Amino acid sequence: MTRTVLESASKTVTIGFDEPFCVIGERINPTGRKKLAAELEAGDFSTVERDALEQVACGAMVLDVNAGVVYNTNPDPNITEPPLMRRMIDLVQQLVDVPLCIDSSVPGALQAGLEAVSGRPLVNSVTGEEDRLELVLPLIKKFNVPVVAISNDDTGISEDPDIRFDVARKIVERAADFGIPACDIVVDPLVMPVGAMATAGRQVFALVRRLRDELGVNTTCGASNISFGLPHRHGVNAAFLPMAIGAGMTSAIMNPVRLVEMESIRAANLLMNHDPNGGEWIRFSRVLEAVAQGASFAEAGKAAMATGISGGRRGGRRSRS
Amino acid sequence: MTRTVLESASKTVTIGFDEPFCVIGERINPTGRKKLAAELEAGDFSTVERDALEQVACGAMVLDVNAGVVYNTNPDPNITEPPLMRRMIDLVQQLVDVPLCIDSSVPGALQAGLEAVSGRPLVNSVTGEEDRLELVLPLIKKFNVPVVAISNDDTGISEDPDIRFDVARKIVERAADFGIPACDIVVDPLVMPVGAMATAGRQVFALVRRLRDELGVNTTCGASNISFGLPHRHGVNAAFLPMAIGAGMTSAIMNPVRLVEMESIRAANLLMNHDPNGGEWIRFSRVLEAVAQGASFAEAGKAAMATGISGGRRGGRRSRS
Repeated sequence: MTRTVLESASKTVTIGFDEPFCVIGERINPTGRKKLAAELEAGDFSTVERDALEQVACGAMVLDVNAGVVYNTNPDPNITEPPLMRRMIDLVQQLVDVPLCIDSSVPGALQAGLEAVSGRPLVNSVTGEEDRLELVLPLIKKFNVPVVAISNDDTGISEDPDIRFDVARKIVERAADFGIPACDIVVDPLVMPVGAMATAGRQVFALVRRLRDELGVNTTCGASNISFGLPHRHGVNAAFLPMAIGAGMTSAIMNPVRLVEMESIRAANLLMNHDPNGGEWIRFSRVLEAVAQGASFAEAGKAAMATGISGGRRGGRRSRS
Repeated sequence: MTRTVLESASKTVTIGFDEPFCVIGERINPTGRKKLAAELEAGDFSTVERDALEQVACGAMVLDVNAGVVYNTNPDPNITEPPLMRRMIDLVQQLVDVPLCIDSSVPGALQAGLEAVSGRPLVNSVTGEEDRLELVLPLIKKFNVPVVAISNDDTGISEDPDIRFDVARKIVERAADFGIPACDIVVDPLVMPVGAMATAGRQVFALVRRLRDELGVNTTCGASNISFGLPHRHGVNAAFLPMAIGAGMTSAIMNPVRLVEMESIRAANLLMNHDPNGGEWIRFSRVLEAVAQGASFAEAGKAAMATGISGGRRGGRRSRS
């Protein structure tokens, strides 16, 4: 059974076919967030702090940390990103005890993050591009950590799911050459917007099933891509996530502060028999009640955590299935 | 390709693997509705009228009609149910132009309904019980209509999905002996409450896939059973339906007046590439907006229908997939 094991200072999160879906919070990322980018350049980490606490309160089991700010004062990310990554990881680790996902395209920043982090983080990401494979896989091997493998290569992102599958297989095989096991490769099969490509949903469901059955790997995705450009995106996301989970998807990089998506994941966990005795669903229903009575999702989630609700099962407990 | 064709006086609804999910409205049924039962015995059909109009406005593509009232004045359903079925069908057909699902365990009521109905209805239901097979299948053959086949037999409802599959196969084979094709058998694999049986969801998903791949039949279910006894049932239902659709389920007998479930089905249709150009999703998003502004779902749905939204594609138009 494929188990991708992540650790913080004291907690273990396992991504696996018989585990609750792993929600990786995407918020701590200045890409496309101009205000956050400006704050980080100015040394203001208040938004990072708030995003860390809020995402965990809402049920994120892992937090992605991206330090990809293009500084106005020094536009070379190879210089600026490593120390910022280190600082952000230090800060987040002080606030919350969940495994981290070190997210960068700058190898020096990945290295800095891997040196700063406690436990066993996920690295985000490697692709099938030759230079990325040669730069990232040695780091993955050296630090003995799992990595997100994105299914594009030097020819770009193929619209043909068979080619994306072949890229994923190439990465798994190349990783094996470095001595990295398949259980430490979490494949992102790439989710296209269904508004632009009508087959996007079916492609992902079929790919996830093949990746699981033929390569035996865990999977992840940028879940909200599916609804890009459509009205009422949350409704599309909240159907996509259970369908992807039913097809075998085991994690997503997403915004956990959205109640409707998190509700759909909790329900899918229950329906996949990854919620023993329905305990998490029953506790989550109290969060829904508190929100209906006017509490924010984060407030209600935090209160529920204090009384026993968790962001998913932690540690070595096994599901019944 | 398996296509179960239903017709009203002027409209065709096709249940199929490459069709939008077929929503069969369950409301016109006095079982467990004491007030409705009393009204029907007293000759008051106002609730039936309202339920017919409301369900179609909310997106039901087929309406189930059940006349199973146990009269206080005459407790023999073989006497009372056939004329009531005829009257209810006449009434519903005058109000709405959607195919009907004639729902009874009384053969005389099925016969009365089949004589009264326009077009090509679905019959609900036959089981694997010997007496039901011998009573119902000749009617199905005589009237050349499709039938819901429920996966229990003389030994009851098995908790073993393999046995439920075998019962479904037996019904399909027995129907073939009568000259009834598999495309006119819509199998209900029986949905258990996930709160009572933790594997209930996974059982249904696996069964639906087998029924499709091995028997080539369409499927249906009483969708809300899955959440029986749980808090926040709509949240469980709204994840179950997309997961079942992803597994290959092609219809459900359900309450279409519930916005969150209908939203999840519309989104699943889009994600399955059963909503060409996302037209239905975009139109449905206007219903969501109207409801957010205070309209009832039925009002908003009716208004949207007047401007082009439908309860799903009708007639012979084919999907792109």
